[in-house]
Amino acid sequence: MVNMETNKIQSSDLERFIRQVFYSLGFNDAESESGARVLTLADLRGVESHGVARLGGYVRLVDAGKIKPNANPYVERQSYGTATLNADSGLGLHMAGKAMHLAMELAQLHGSGWVSVCNSSHFGIAYSHITHALERGMMALALTNASPLVAPAGGKERLLGTNPICLGIPAGQYPPFVLDMATTVVANGKLEVAARKGVNIPLGYAQDAEGNPSTDPTILTQGGSMVPLGGSLAHSSYKGYGLGAAVDILSGVLSGANYGPWVPPFVPFLGNITEKQGDGIGHFVGAWQIDGFMDPQLFAQRMDTWIQRFSQSVPAAGVDRVYVPGQLENMTHAKRLETGIPIGISVWESLAALDSRFGIGIIHS
Amino acid sequence: MVNMETNKIQSSDLERFIRQVFYSLGFNDAESESGARVLTLADLRGVESHGVARLGGYVRLVDAGKIKPNANPYVERQSYGTATLNADSGLGLHMAGKAMHLAMELAQLHGSGWVSVCNSSHFGIAYSHITHALERGMMALALTNASPLVAPAGGKERLLGTNPICLGIPAGQYPPFVLDMATTVVANGKLEVAARKGVNIPLGYAQDAEGNPSTDPTILTQGGSMVPLGGSLAHSSYKGYGLGAAVDILSGVLSGANYGPWVPPFVPFLGNITEKQGDGIGHFVGAWQIDGFMDPQLFAQRMDTWIQRFSQSVPAAGVDRVYVPGQLENMTHAKRLETGIPIGISVWESLAALDSRFGIGIIHS
Repeated sequence: MVNMETNKIQSSDLERFIRQVFYSLGFNDAESESGARVLTLADLRGVESHGVARLGGYVRLVDAGKIKPNANPYVERQSYGTATLNADSGLGLHMAGKAMHLAMELAQLHGSGWVSVCNSSHFGIAYSHITHALERGMMALALTNASPLVAPAGGKERLLGTNPICLGIPAGQYPPFVLDMATTVVANGKLEVAARKGVNIPLGYAQDAEGNPSTDPTILTQGGSMVPLGGSLAHSSYKGYGLGAAVDILSGVLSGANYGPWVPPFVPFLGNITEKQGDGIGHFVGAWQIDGFMDPQLFAQRMDTWIQRFSQSVPAAGVDRVYVPGQLENMTHAKRLETGIPIGISVWESLAALDSRFGIGIIHS
Repeated sequence: MVNMETNKIQSSDLERFIRQVFYSLGFNDAESESGARVLTLADLRGVESHGVARLGGYVRLVDAGKIKPNANPYVERQSYGTATLNADSGLGLHMAGKAMHLAMELAQLHGSGWVSVCNSSHFGIAYSHITHALERGMMALALTNASPLVAPAGGKERLLGTNPICLGIPAGQYPPFVLDMATTVVANGKLEVAARKGVNIPLGYAQDAEGNPSTDPTILTQGGSMVPLGGSLAHSSYKGYGLGAAVDILSGVLSGANYGPWVPPFVPFLGNITEKQGDGIGHFVGAWQIDGFMDPQLFAQRMDTWIQRFSQSVPAAGVDRVYVPGQLENMTHAKRLETGIPIGISVWESLAALDSRFGIGIIHS
């Protein structure tokens, strides 16, 4: 099952293991399956920062009573194609998918459907939630707020999360266009990777507690903050800040969740945030039917032309090739389905400890 | 009317002048009023690159038969809360507002309303189109594609416009949250300003025809291109590229307009683009009612708390203050309403020529 020479694990084994961990924690079948699917999908697509490396974090929050297994989400408010879902302190990995399914139902009745989610928890890789809509030929958007680690452009306080924007648009012969991005220069996972390797980070990724640029990958544990996309005021970091702020408002303010500096953190070094502005963290998802804008067949052809033209984009001096958004992740996905998912030694050890705690018998130290 | 010592003009005089120019070109009252309102609003908010400095460009395109006065826009397709508007080669400054009004009507029936627009032309400052929805207490989005001047991240061909994203969210006691940003590091207007002053641009704004970073503000006229937000591959310019691409697809591919490198250019130095993928340029606008998500009164209170907290954000070392998105533009707007709009000498001369051509009698050389 596990090739110890290459430190790789087949995705089906990994998914089975994660499902078993969630199940052992008291999550029901649907929650456990969503949790396993979403985390495995992140690793398949090369987004290790949102994959099984985070499993221990979810377990910690469940142990601490901050994520509730077997939750009962309910629609708190609805009008035509818009609604708010209360996730009942449940597993964000599952609840965001439920919200997307509701948005898709609303889109069938109203052209587009929009669901804000409160009282939820970390939803993992945003891409995993838009796949449901893409499979049904819809365009979809997924946003979430997150642990306050990011300073506004020109600021030094940590007021925002890395608040991702994920937009998917189906095509014809090509896989869908998929943009899935943190609204910071890089996700905080990149700092963790650099810290493990003991190397500095480039200037422009993060800053110290006074707002001075920093190359220290552990700066977040010393009061430092991530920098919004743009990287500096001179290079328009107010735009990355504005995007992250918009995600925070749509996900947190609109749903009744916490927002800004009051978002309950996923990362342990932020400790507890005692002041509240709402319940849990928030998401915002939506789906559009294409039919109301254009014949879907014609749209698929036009998307194929778009993707083809941009795939053929001539690279700049010193660059190998230009990727259409989502293309690189699709290539990693295909390769890892075949050859397995590489797992670093420290993550491996954390998984072996979980295996041993729950007596699963898939991951051995 | 015009203070020649300060080179300032009162916004009401400027708006009257612009309306008269459009009217003289054969546009009807509604078109002329929209055109004047949208261009003046850009100058009031300090976005000179999209203000009256562009008037001569619109006149040139009308003279060339590329923008049609007195156009008859029509709904080409519709299903529930989604629709496509054909702008009949009309004035984008007017058509985008019409599309937003349609989106607002659809939002009243379906919770949210979405309109893609084909066969249109440059729509000016995106903010001007979301004001209609903000005034009615709705959240709104406005996107457009534009002249191909931007290379994909890692590429050297000009395949995208500076494709703006504008999102507005109403608050309570505070003015609305307004994000209005090009998806490039800076708008191409900044290069024009530097060229007029004869100064270099910072690295990271633009690149030469081979994709090498350039500090030459005239590089776009030598085959160079603008760089997506992020500024370099190491600082995640694929994110700015992905956002600009998403705007292009929603505005151009989905509506039946041209997209990517086939967008008919506004700037004269790109010449004619003869190959077509659709009609004119494209926009995408939408509006959400708040009521389906949350009680609007409660939402307004929560937005006020958000804005208050972020307004109080402690600045980083060397920074005066942190602005909430839209705040700086609101301050400029208030000031210029009172003290007038500064007009540079070259723009002034172009306006005087138009005044003389149409015998208006407001702007004198």
